[in-house]
Amino acid sequence: MVLNEIKNRRSVRKFKPEMIPDEKITEIIKAAQFAPTAMNNQAIEYIIIKEQTIKDQIFEITEPKQEFVKTAPIIIVPFTNTEKTNLATQDLSLASENIFLQAAAFGLGSVWKNCYPPVAKKVKFILNIPEKYTLINIIPIGIPEENPKPYGDFNFKSEGIHTEKYGTKFKIKNDLTRKNK
Amino acid sequence: MVLNEIKNRRSVRKFKPEMIPDEKITEIIKAAQFAPTAMNNQAIEYIIIKEQTIKDQIFEITEPKQEFVKTAPIIIVPFTNTEKTNLATQDLSLASENIFLQAAAFGLGSVWKNCYPPVAKKVKFILNIPEKYTLINIIPIGIPEENPKPYGDFNFKSEGIHTEKYGTKFKIKNDLTRKNK
Repeated sequence: MVLNEIKNRRSVRKFKPEMIPDEKITEIIKAAQFAPTAMNNQAIEYIIIKEQTIKDQIFEITEPKQEFVKTAPIIIVPFTNTEKTNLATQDLSLASENIFLQAAAFGLGSVWKNCYPPVAKKVKFILNIPEKYTLINIIPIGIPEENPKPYGDFNFKSEGIHTEKYGTKFKIKNDLTRKNK
Repeated sequence: MVLNEIKNRRSVRKFKPEMIPDEKITEIIKAAQFAPTAMNNQAIEYIIIKEQTIKDQIFEITEPKQEFVKTAPIIIVPFTNTEKTNLATQDLSLASENIFLQAAAFGLGSVWKNCYPPVAKKVKFILNIPEKYTLINIIPIGIPEENPKPYGDFNFKSEGIHTEKYGTKFKIKNDLTRKNK
């Protein structure tokens, strides 16, 4: 049930040094590839980084600098061809969510490390990514060294859910929030 | 296993008229709420539309006009508070993917109906959404009247997966692509 992975997916920023087997990396990329893309453009590509020197180079140019960029065993960098999509940010975000969820399904931790355009440009330079591609984030992944608590139904907020139009509260059914409190 | 829902999630554009029970709608919104948001801002809100007149009004202003906007039993509209996030498009996209996956887990079909800013402005007007909020899509959901084939491992493309830097092919392990062909 996907809601389990959704609840177990918490941003992880401390990783054990153990490498992730390529079989799992392959499944994670597969999950990302099957995310929807605008007009089904399927233009996203991926770089899997394991080499320490490259991780160190990327660490140096990210803002803010965060240790997990150096210490994660792998970093996945999704990027897409702007000649093939008008909705690069949307496409890359949807694929990223599938990466997070498939990682969670393997018991792995991951985190969205955001790259605003000036940083993205530097990441592209380090990774030799051609001009026509764009990226919005990098995704460090590894065995968690910290264990953020999974979401539970008690975290569900019934505020901000409207019916028909803004301002009319949707009546939550099966409100596990209250039951679990 | 999340990869099942990921494979079963295909864009559905024809729906049966049956209403979706509120219990399932609640679980779908829950899945969306547990998606990551920038700096954990959790600023996304949702409108669930069932009323035909509102669906008809939205149909009229979308581009291109697509019948499923009128015929889907429900439309979920995620929108977020731009005063609380710098990454509205990313936040809304991640939540949308969880909506798609939780819908798929229930055997429901869904589709990303994109709203470029001029259309989004009109949708906000119809739904009385205040100025400070932004939206990027609407998500019709229902029991599928068409059944697009789920993804299989044979759909997995090993091209465009690089190792360390752009241009060096990642060696796919457990290449089910070949096994299944």
